[in-house]
Amino acid sequence: MNPREDLRSIFNKALMKVDPFSMIRERMKIHGDALEITGETKTLTIELEAYPKVLVTGIGKASAKMAAAAGQVLGDRITGGAVITKHGQGQQLERIKVLEAGHPIPDENSVSGAQELHSMAGLADEKTLMINLISGGGSALFSLPREGITLAHLQETTKTLLGCGADIREINCIRKHLSQVKGGGFARTAFPARMINLILSDVMGDRLDTIASGITVPDATTFGQALAVVEKYGIAEKLPSPVIEVLRAGGKGLIPETPKPGDPVFNEVENIILGNNTAACRGAVEHARELGYHACFLTSSLTGEAREMARVFSAMARDIRRGASEMGKPAFVVTGGETTVTLTGSGKGGRNQELALAFLVDVLDATGTLEDIFFLSVGTDGVDGPTDAAGAFVLPGMQKAIKEGDIRPREYLSANDSYHFFRKTGGLLITGPTDTNVCDLQLLIVA
Amino acid sequence: MNPREDLRSIFNKALMKVDPFSMIRERMKIHGDALEITGETKTLTIELEAYPKVLVTGIGKASAKMAAAAGQVLGDRITGGAVITKHGQGQQLERIKVLEAGHPIPDENSVSGAQELHSMAGLADEKTLMINLISGGGSALFSLPREGITLAHLQETTKTLLGCGADIREINCIRKHLSQVKGGGFARTAFPARMINLILSDVMGDRLDTIASGITVPDATTFGQALAVVEKYGIAEKLPSPVIEVLRAGGKGLIPETPKPGDPVFNEVENIILGNNTAACRGAVEHARELGYHACFLTSSLTGEAREMARVFSAMARDIRRGASEMGKPAFVVTGGETTVTLTGSGKGGRNQELALAFLVDVLDATGTLEDIFFLSVGTDGVDGPTDAAGAFVLPGMQKAIKEGDIRPREYLSANDSYHFFRKTGGLLITGPTDTNVCDLQLLIVA
Repeated sequence: MNPREDLRSIFNKALMKVDPFSMIRERMKIHGDALEITGETKTLTIELEAYPKVLVTGIGKASAKMAAAAGQVLGDRITGGAVITKHGQGQQLERIKVLEAGHPIPDENSVSGAQELHSMAGLADEKTLMINLISGGGSALFSLPREGITLAHLQETTKTLLGCGADIREINCIRKHLSQVKGGGFARTAFPARMINLILSDVMGDRLDTIASGITVPDATTFGQALAVVEKYGIAEKLPSPVIEVLRAGGKGLIPETPKPGDPVFNEVENIILGNNTAACRGAVEHARELGYHACFLTSSLTGEAREMARVFSAMARDIRRGASEMGKPAFVVTGGETTVTLTGSGKGGRNQELALAFLVDVLDATGTLEDIFFLSVGTDGVDGPTDAAGAFVLPGMQKAIKEGDIRPREYLSANDSYHFFRKTGGLLITGPTDTNVCDLQLLIVA
Repeated sequence: MNPREDLRSIFNKALMKVDPFSMIRERMKIHGDALEITGETKTLTIELEAYPKVLVTGIGKASAKMAAAAGQVLGDRITGGAVITKHGQGQQLERIKVLEAGHPIPDENSVSGAQELHSMAGLADEKTLMINLISGGGSALFSLPREGITLAHLQETTKTLLGCGADIREINCIRKHLSQVKGGGFARTAFPARMINLILSDVMGDRLDTIASGITVPDATTFGQALAVVEKYGIAEKLPSPVIEVLRAGGKGLIPETPKPGDPVFNEVENIILGNNTAACRGAVEHARELGYHACFLTSSLTGEAREMARVFSAMARDIRRGASEMGKPAFVVTGGETTVTLTGSGKGGRNQELALAFLVDVLDATGTLEDIFFLSVGTDGVDGPTDAAGAFVLPGMQKAIKEGDIRPREYLSANDSYHFFRKTGGLLITGPTDTNVCDLQLLIVA
């Protein structure tokens, strides 16, 4: 048993579960003439002979890789399709066109690409099966403003909303009402096709109306509410005039509302989450058990200040080590989520490295030793803050480096300088970009 | 299934496990001529016929109740004994003298009582079994300064140490070297008796050298280290002269050191933790399982800022509710520990009420509903901050009260005014003093 290697291997296994390509290959299977899709919470079987036309569409940073896998599964059943990914992430595929657009700032390609998918979906009929692949970044990559509104208008609107103090729900309400595809618009366009949305969720809690601006789910908000937000913050004069005109026309019922819950356009629509932080955590715990650990999956919704959350892992680690836990050794605990860091120092780091450093400090403060304790906090996209590291390990062997180098962990923590602490003690995990993103993971082993 | 009642009943069951009287009755049994003691981590069997003399001694706030139970178990096998409890907590017992002394500030009774126990232990021989009952508050209740030092000197010393910035380890090092009983001194006095210390731990992590100043465990610190602390903070002139004289005499080897690890005076000494936060958590999880819940005991070492820790419970509760957890419903989670509150407002509350309020706010912010979620954070001593409540419940029914009363949970949280929030919404748990203290418990049900 090599706990450090085990942590690395468990992390790899977790990543595989949410890797755009592997995930689609694992979750989409053809049995005879049926397509079987295994989601996180439901399984769907589709009789393919009912659908002479099969489109593969998609938006998001992972859409090209998801489409590549879907192409392998569906082969020549695919009659057409197109996906939009970020500039530089494209690849050539048979049968499916790969478009590139701007992210995180939308560009003209976001509009032209959206126009192309929109037209394609508009031609779909009830004999069309549309496999639509959704991943993070979709909001920027897929932008189709209502008539009369330009990208520049949208950007000005966003700026005004952020500046006036509107909250994220208020901002999204207005945005959805300025778009032809957000807030369920894309599902309306595809109607009456059978639309299967396969989702790689980068949003904690997997709120479908938030992932990629909810292009395939009902929107409960109204033009009336959008106008109330404008009123509340007194920004009618500050918004571009075409924007305010669209909202007012909508308020009078002159242009169509976003589709609401219960709207028949959703009758043939299924939203299936294939990959998310929970799937990664489950993958981790499963592999830890294969390796012989007592394993426990705590939550995939961890939020809060990174250095405070570190205490929870420290508490569990110390309890397990001294036998004051229900978990016997060797024990493995995984959590997922997205913590925050309130900066007070001027050092270099990321929320995962900070959490790991705070964990190390807490364990050492309480017990004086890192013995038997192995920890990794890491961003699944391979990036932690403005650093080249994905996250950091805490390992028993670091105590030697700390002592010999007269390194003071607490001072690095106070300076928010976790990156340099772990560079000196050999704790950095550098993976490079991973092609996926389901927030962060924390992995603890007590050996 | 009534989750609110279940939380209350689970909490009661947890308390029973650490109730001084019930705990001793459950953990000490006579089988024939053998005394069997079941600790948290070890079980001990003592052949009573080897010990014609059986003393029951004890110090701490729970010592009278522990002694009453020990009296019932051992009956007329007891040949003598005395315990020291807090003023007002005494009761008359057969065979065992109950003394009272000052807490949290030691008084002359702390010295005279200590003198009496010290003399009694000094007469013990190898045919003596000494059952010594230790609980929280022991440091103040049991004070026997080295020759030449008075209580007033000790108090002045403590004040100087706190004022100069010395940390708790440095302070304890000096204190132990000024006492005849702290830092293993009481065990040395009782040598060569068979000394069985039965401990109700009010200290997170159960460090035996911390509970009641470690009167029965080896002290790894030295007079030399005590003098180094004096040097480090330049306080030689500020300490009472008899104090500095004792430390210097000790440094020269003119008076005996505290007994060190490996000292034969500990050969016949056993320290057994009977009750602690872990035992309470285990009791909770056991009873939850009896009631039909999937139950999990996370940690008994929870620390950190109360409102941040609340997020962990919120994350788990939301995951369990939406099926994104390994735990099915109905689910129960327990933790123990001691959080802190950084005050920014001027309201009324305690760390448990604040944690419960922050939990409510976090769940509502993330999901808009308390549906299916029941939570209790509570102090096991029945006291939470400067309030008459032991802690507070979060219950689905509160949403009605919040709505109807136009109560804004977040504003109460910002004002650190959890007490008034829960008074208005019916969430306060008022128990009165419970006779025990093993820090706090957090209990979560997702039904």
